[in-house]
Amino acid sequence: MPKIISEETKYQGPRFNVVQRIYEDENNQKKYVRDSVELLPAAMVLPITENNEVVFIKQFREVLGKETMELPAGIIEVGEEPIVAAKRELEEETGLIAGKIEPLTEVFSSCGYSNEKLYMFYAKDLSLGKKRLDDDEHIGDIVKIPMEECIDLVKKNYFEHANQNVCLMLYYLKYVAK
Amino acid sequence: MPKIISEETKYQGPRFNVVQRIYEDENNQKKYVRDSVELLPAAMVLPITENNEVVFIKQFREVLGKETMELPAGIIEVGEEPIVAAKRELEEETGLIAGKIEPLTEVFSSCGYSNEKLYMFYAKDLSLGKKRLDDDEHIGDIVKIPMEECIDLVKKNYFEHANQNVCLMLYYLKYVAK
Repeated sequence: MPKIISEETKYQGPRFNVVQRIYEDENNQKKYVRDSVELLPAAMVLPITENNEVVFIKQFREVLGKETMELPAGIIEVGEEPIVAAKRELEEETGLIAGKIEPLTEVFSSCGYSNEKLYMFYAKDLSLGKKRLDDDEHIGDIVKIPMEECIDLVKKNYFEHANQNVCLMLYYLKYVAK
Repeated sequence: MPKIISEETKYQGPRFNVVQRIYEDENNQKKYVRDSVELLPAAMVLPITENNEVVFIKQFREVLGKETMELPAGIIEVGEEPIVAAKRELEEETGLIAGKIEPLTEVFSSCGYSNEKLYMFYAKDLSLGKKRLDDDEHIGDIVKIPMEECIDLVKKNYFEHANQNVCLMLYYLKYVAK
C-alpha cells in the first residue's frame, strides 16, 4: 500500500483547499504526487410527497452555466450531524419540513481527486415550513415529478448530476421496484 | 441568470486547476464568488462477461486511504474521443478488449464545485488483450461479480464511489430489470 511521504496545502479557498501529497509505493519504492480537493461533507435529500412525487428545486449551476433540476442539498457545518443538515437544507431550499427522514446511503462524489463525501437521505410526511436562502444561492420554485417518471428521466440522461441519479435510482431499487 | 464579472486561475496543478470567478446576480445586482475545479473529462466502463458478471479492479484510493473495488476508468486525453478512451482504459487496467462498447450516460460528478464530466460506457464480448498500467497507478487483480449481486452490494452501501453506483444501477434499470 502506498504511504504518504509529505503533504503541503497548495491553495486555500472559501469552499475548498487543495492539498498536495507525495506518496511512496511500498512495492517498488517509486514516488508519485496526488493533488486532493478537500472540503466539508454535504447532505442531499430525496423529498417524497404522499403521492409518490419527488420534490426538486430549480437551481443555477455555475459549472454548467444554466439552471437545472436539483434535489435539495448543502454543506454539513462543522459539528453538525448529517441528518440535522439534511433537514435544515430541505427546509431552507424548499420550505418543507420532513416528518420522517431516513438515511439512504453515503458516497464519495469523485474519489480520484476529492474527499467530498455525500450523506444521502429520503424524506417523507412533508409539511410547509418557511424558505430561507443563503445570499449566494439561486434557487427558483419547487417542481414535483412522479417517482416512476423520475426514473424514466434518469434513463434518458435528463439529469446531469451523478449524485442525484444515485439518490433516485437507489431509493427506487430499495423501496419501489423490490 | 448570474453572469461572470471576472475570472482568475488561483492554482495550476498536475491534474486540475482552480479557477475563481466572480458572478453578478441579474435580479438583485449582488456579487458572489465561486471556486471551480477544472479538469479533463473521464471515461468509465462497465465490463460485462458472457455470464453477466461485472469486471472490477482493485485500486488503491489515496483519498480513502485504502484499496477499493472500482470499475475501469481514466482521463480522456485532449483530442481523444470518449469511446476510444473507454476502450483504452479497459484494456490498460483489466487486460480485456471489448468486442462491443456502447454509451450508457454522461454525468457531472459534482457540479457544485467541479467541471469533471464522466462519459459512461458498457462493454461486452470481452477477450484477452494485454495490461499496461501507468507508473503511478496501483491496481491489483480483476474481480468478477454477478450483476444481481452487484446491485445487492450497491443497496448495502458496499461501493463508496458515487459514479460507479450510477453505472451499475443505470445499466441494471435499462437492460436487466426492465
